[in-house]
Amino acid sequence: MGYVSPRARCRGHISHGSIILGTTEVGEESYIDFNTVVGYPSREKLLRGRPTSINQLDALSSGARIGVGCLIRSGSVIYEEVELMDRVELGHNVLIRKGSRVGCGVRIGSGSQLDGEVVIGDDANIQSMVYLPHLTKVGRKVFIGPLVCVTNDRYPPSRKLTGVTIEDEAVIGAGVLILAGVTIGSRAVVAAGSIVVRDVEPNQLVMGSPAKPVSDRELFEQKKKSYESG
Amino acid sequence: MGYVSPRARCRGHISHGSIILGTTEVGEESYIDFNTVVGYPSREKLLRGRPTSINQLDALSSGARIGVGCLIRSGSVIYEEVELMDRVELGHNVLIRKGSRVGCGVRIGSGSQLDGEVVIGDDANIQSMVYLPHLTKVGRKVFIGPLVCVTNDRYPPSRKLTGVTIEDEAVIGAGVLILAGVTIGSRAVVAAGSIVVRDVEPNQLVMGSPAKPVSDRELFEQKKKSYESG
Amino acid sequence: MGYVSPRARCRGHISHGSIILGTTEVGEESYIDFNTVVGYPSREKLLRGRPTSINQLDALSSGARIGVGCLIRSGSVIYEEVELMDRVELGHNVLIRKGSRVGCGVRIGSGSQLDGEVVIGDDANIQSMVYLPHLTKVGRKVFIGPLVCVTNDRYPPSRKLTGVTIEDEAVIGAGVLILAGVTIGSRAVVAAGSIVVRDVEPNQLVMGSPAKPVSDRELFEQKKKSYESG
Repeated sequence: MGYVSPRARCRGHISHGSIILGTTEVGEESYIDFNTVVGYPSREKLLRGRPTSINQLDALSSGARIGVGCLIRSGSVIYEEVELMDRVELGHNVLIRKGSRVGCGVRIGSGSQLDGEVVIGDDANIQSMVYLPHLTKVGRKVFIGPLVCVTNDRYPPSRKLTGVTIEDEAVIGAGVLILAGVTIGSRAVVAAGSIVVRDVEPNQLVMGSPAKPVSDRELFEQKKKSYESG
Repeated sequence: MGYVSPRARCRGHISHGSIILGTTEVGEESYIDFNTVVGYPSREKLLRGRPTSINQLDALSSGARIGVGCLIRSGSVIYEEVELMDRVELGHNVLIRKGSRVGCGVRIGSGSQLDGEVVIGDDANIQSMVYLPHLTKVGRKVFIGPLVCVTNDRYPPSRKLTGVTIEDEAVIGAGVLILAGVTIGSRAVVAAGSIVVRDVEPNQLVMGSPAKPVSDRELFEQKKKSYESG
Repeated sequence: MGYVSPRARCRGHISHGSIILGTTEVGEESYIDFNTVVGYPSREKLLRGRPTSINQLDALSSGARIGVGCLIRSGSVIYEEVELMDRVELGHNVLIRKGSRVGCGVRIGSGSQLDGEVVIGDDANIQSMVYLPHLTKVGRKVFIGPLVCVTNDRYPPSRKLTGVTIEDEAVIGAGVLILAGVTIGSRAVVAAGSIVVRDVEPNQLVMGSPAKPVSDRELFEQKKKSYESG
């Protein structure tokens, strides 16, 4: 198998078994691994078009755009109208749905999902098995630990989705749950395992369920420094 | 690659790279995506049979049954003796083990697992990365948020598994953990991040760790209504 | 597709669509399922080498070692320099990074990740969707429930990683979060949903967030016995 659309423009390396659909562009020095799908059509197109061949599927796709020097590992699925800027690196089995935009130098760990239109700022570091639903906004240099779950619906299943915003340089510890509509301020820190139910001010360090302010970023950085040198 | 058993009866569309084993039936207008496996043999058969070719593997499989108008996305693995009724829609990399039954109109998000004999009622809506072990029973129109974990063993690893039952129209928020043997009553609501250690009455809204009653479904619906119109 | 390196020595069964790289060894009676990758090269080699063909990728790989009687299910990715001893059984889409060592008779559930150099003792039982980062050490006969998240960085992202150690025969319930550097003593029990922030003594049973001692292993075994016979 493996298929590269005649409409695609691939300057990087496409491994065998990968499927590149539509007007996808892949920048120079990017590496597309085994069994990857790029430019996967939206649900609506699939259900309407019911393609019966790879060529028909290809014809449905608007393609995705992958920048220069990206590394897309095996099993990952990137929908149409996704934009990955330069030097993005994905783990295995990452899912990125239609319309998401991922900034330069972002890393996303294996098994993580951008499940809708999600925006990730430059140099964000997203660990494994993270779930970011439709309308989530993640700022520059944000760190998100493994198994973090972000939500977008206060009264599920409702007709109104409200995204979570995580501002620049915030740190979200492992296993954190963030409720719909919350804003985590810039340089804030959320301790591992917390449940965040309301906004967190910039530079605050919050902890617990529900998460409450217990410290600040400056103290966190001081402790980090002594931990690193300890 | 890609393989369709001569014993299978496929009326829908089978994408290339998919493997359809045994006496699998696929209904009209169903769409089986890339790299999907349908009719995967049980562990016992694999270990006993040690198939050395796709034909031998095929010979071991009892097949699965997929109804009309289903959408099975890439990377999903459906074991033998699974039954998906009409209009079931799976995300990517969904795992459904032997003997599970999934009702009409059910949606299951990417990366979720039905890890044993699991029963899902009509029109249930199961989000991404949900774990439902052997003996879990989910009613009609139940909503289960992302990263929900259901268990089946009070004293692991024991020789006695007791399934969780989630009755009709219950709502389980994101990141909830439900202990073995618990029954969540019909139309009950479990707030995101809760740990449920005992039964929840119908129409109750529970919250916290351990989850305790704090409200009811009627109030939840009122709040939802004002949220949606807000 | 499917590829078996001329440098590999495979005595077991390699299913079609699998990719076996480098000097990988697969022991007798082992079963390598569809769409599996064994001997995947490290990030550093990929980025340096930028292979443009399967042969070049193969040339980069140091291979992995898989013992006798193993069962590696579809979608799993095993990096180079990984060692799986005899009778290891993996679920679907398991990820095992470079340098990990997995003991005899270990079972690892679908979607779980050994995300770095991780050591797993003989006969450990690791359920689905478990995240074990770099430097985690798991003893013999340990049980780890589904959706358990182990961490390795107290002040992420820092330059100092400190692994978690889970000693022999410990039981870690579903959905548990364990902070970096913690040691869980032998035969200790961590109740489902707990957050472990400090060391747990051998034979202690801890519960809650943060987890505190509430019982011991002996009582847990007594309760298990009456539960199993109830």
